Amino acid sequence: MELLNSTLKNIKPVDESWYAIAQKHLDNLTKPPGSLGRLEEFAGQLVAITENRSPLLDKKVIFTFAGDHGITEEGVSAYPKEVTPQMVFNFIRGGAGINVLARHAGAEIVVVDIGVDYDFGELNGLINTMKVVKGTRNFAKGPAMTGKEAIKCIEVGITIANGYAKKGHKIFGTGDMGIGNTTPSSAIAAVLTGNPVAKVTGKGTGITDESLMRKIRVIENGIKLNKPNPDDAVDVLAKVGGAEIGGIAGLVLGAASNRIPVIIDGFISTAGALIAYCIEPKTRDYMFAAHNSVEVGHTAILAEMGLKPILDLGLRLGEGTGAALAMLMIEAGLKIYKEMATFGEAGVSNEILN
Amino acid sequence: MELLNSTLKNIKPVDESWYAIAQKHLDNLTKPPGSLGRLEEFAGQLVAITENRSPLLDKKVIFTFAGDHGITEEGVSAYPKEVTPQMVFNFIRGGAGINVLARHAGAEIVVVDIGVDYDFGELNGLINTMKVVKGTRNFAKGPAMTGKEAIKCIEVGITIANGYAKKGHKIFGTGDMGIGNTTPSSAIAAVLTGNPVAKVTGKGTGITDESLMRKIRVIENGIKLNKPNPDDAVDVLAKVGGAEIGGIAGLVLGAASNRIPVIIDGFISTAGALIAYCIEPKTRDYMFAAHNSVEVGHTAILAEMGLKPILDLGLRLGEGTGAALAMLMIEAGLKIYKEMATFGEAGVSNEILN
Repeated sequence: MELLNSTLKNIKPVDESWYAIAQKHLDNLTKPPGSLGRLEEFAGQLVAITENRSPLLDKKVIFTFAGDHGITEEGVSAYPKEVTPQMVFNFIRGGAGINVLARHAGAEIVVVDIGVDYDFGELNGLINTMKVVKGTRNFAKGPAMTGKEAIKCIEVGITIANGYAKKGHKIFGTGDMGIGNTTPSSAIAAVLTGNPVAKVTGKGTGITDESLMRKIRVIENGIKLNKPNPDDAVDVLAKVGGAEIGGIAGLVLGAASNRIPVIIDGFISTAGALIAYCIEPKTRDYMFAAHNSVEVGHTAILAEMGLKPILDLGLRLGEGTGAALAMLMIEAGLKIYKEMATFGEAGVSNEILN
Repeated sequence: MELLNSTLKNIKPVDESWYAIAQKHLDNLTKPPGSLGRLEEFAGQLVAITENRSPLLDKKVIFTFAGDHGITEEGVSAYPKEVTPQMVFNFIRGGAGINVLARHAGAEIVVVDIGVDYDFGELNGLINTMKVVKGTRNFAKGPAMTGKEAIKCIEVGITIANGYAKKGHKIFGTGDMGIGNTTPSSAIAAVLTGNPVAKVTGKGTGITDESLMRKIRVIENGIKLNKPNPDDAVDVLAKVGGAEIGGIAGLVLGAASNRIPVIIDGFISTAGALIAYCIEPKTRDYMFAAHNSVEVGHTAILAEMGLKPILDLGLRLGEGTGAALAMLMIEAGLKIYKEMATFGEAGVSNEILN
């Protein structure tokens, strides 16, 4: 709780005047003003977040938080829960989607076992000393975690953010792995955005229509049973959330307190970001929304935070895959800002005729 | 004409069965089926275009075709026409938006002077031996080019495509530079899609509302005067088009005849692609639409060809900038296809529960 509180004290709003400083430079580059659209916006946001006229993105890292979910007992997922540790091994061996796309984006991957129901031991590329739970409890029968566990999950995320800030990493991406984790994400979306469960619940990795109906009922009943307080995001995280979602929330808080831009992946990551946003709305200024997921609840959460996704490629894999792709676009914006010639340097006329 | 005719004979439809071959492999990778959305689609299209189970994209190139436009005499553009050669020098020195983004995408840039009203002489990175016109004529007063010149422009594009295919380049991107060139692009869009001029004409690099009204009138009158035949795309290109637009059309035809995927940049490039498509609709299978431009006519042309843009980042710069960014996404799709582990290799369960 102490780490969370001290972190919250360190989160400052982004000073709007830096956007104007960045735009002034962008408007002097050899292109019609504004013609690089959102790339210019990304550059402005990076300048404003870092308060640096020439920000660096040389050390990029994506954190994939892994956890298991008691709610899988209710038959809400297309895959058996054994797939969570199997996929962690796949990440470590470099064969998963996130490995391929992080390599493509030139980003490091760090896998965090924050709540997997499996003992990995020491593995290269895995943080295995920060497990908070061995899977959450089934929130159809009682709270998924205690309040203390939920805070501990958030503090794991903060600790990791602080560590990688100290090591000189300049941009973070979030990612998740956890069979069943669209279910707690939909529960969080429903409670914190006020939408009906059915409006924010989708087919996850690919369940049938019948299973979707059951999933919606399970979430509705879980919320009725546990009564998460919509004005207390930590309570929501504890009662109907998940360990990896809490880790992502903490990572976002830690990123903001270190003035590090953080790319929010898809539905599960955005549920984590929403927890962070409800705890401290200023975190929003530090976020980039990677993409528009196929999962229906994603749009509702993005709207709640007022974030516009960068990509729309029909992704629904998670792991941080969307964050890796969006990282390439954000970096493109920064390179435009730093590498393009000005009108003066290039001897190009910037006289506007009409 | 001979080169154009022999090229058309070589354009074969893409064999649909290759999509199924690619999808079968994609569905065996460690992810829920279809969960990487359009990345999977890109991989399938690359496999189908190349008829290769393991396509390469190691040599990537973006062609920026430059030309001037007599129609600028009518006050349709925000910038003076001197900016066309000034920007060509900027490309050659590496300071323009396309230079930055092509470096980011790992692509070579080739600048083609197909119709600039300026003599560059020899410059490293510029093709200066293929100029067809020194600027088009003002289509408010008569045809922009003769039919012969239009065909020559197309054949320049084909010749370049053939040359880079022979040199082993595996994917092409298109780009344009030409002050005033949204005006012929809107004219082409109106004639070939059947939309009213006002519906496919925008502010280009940033003219005023008043100038936009004038631009629309100029295009309407130009079409009335020159009577381009909507059933003859070469006639449309000649009468109300532009040299760089013809070059791009030729590049697309040449790409298709060499079974090379081609990424179509924004509005001007898409007008060029539409000329190619109207000459030979099978070219569509070889195209990727890079992005959704701010320029209003772009959407109408994409709809006409049934293409769905990859990115939507509010770009309106041209040069090939959108193509460079989209190249990164297409390559991501191919890397997923080639580098991800299968369920068997990774020891991950692919049992679907419900």
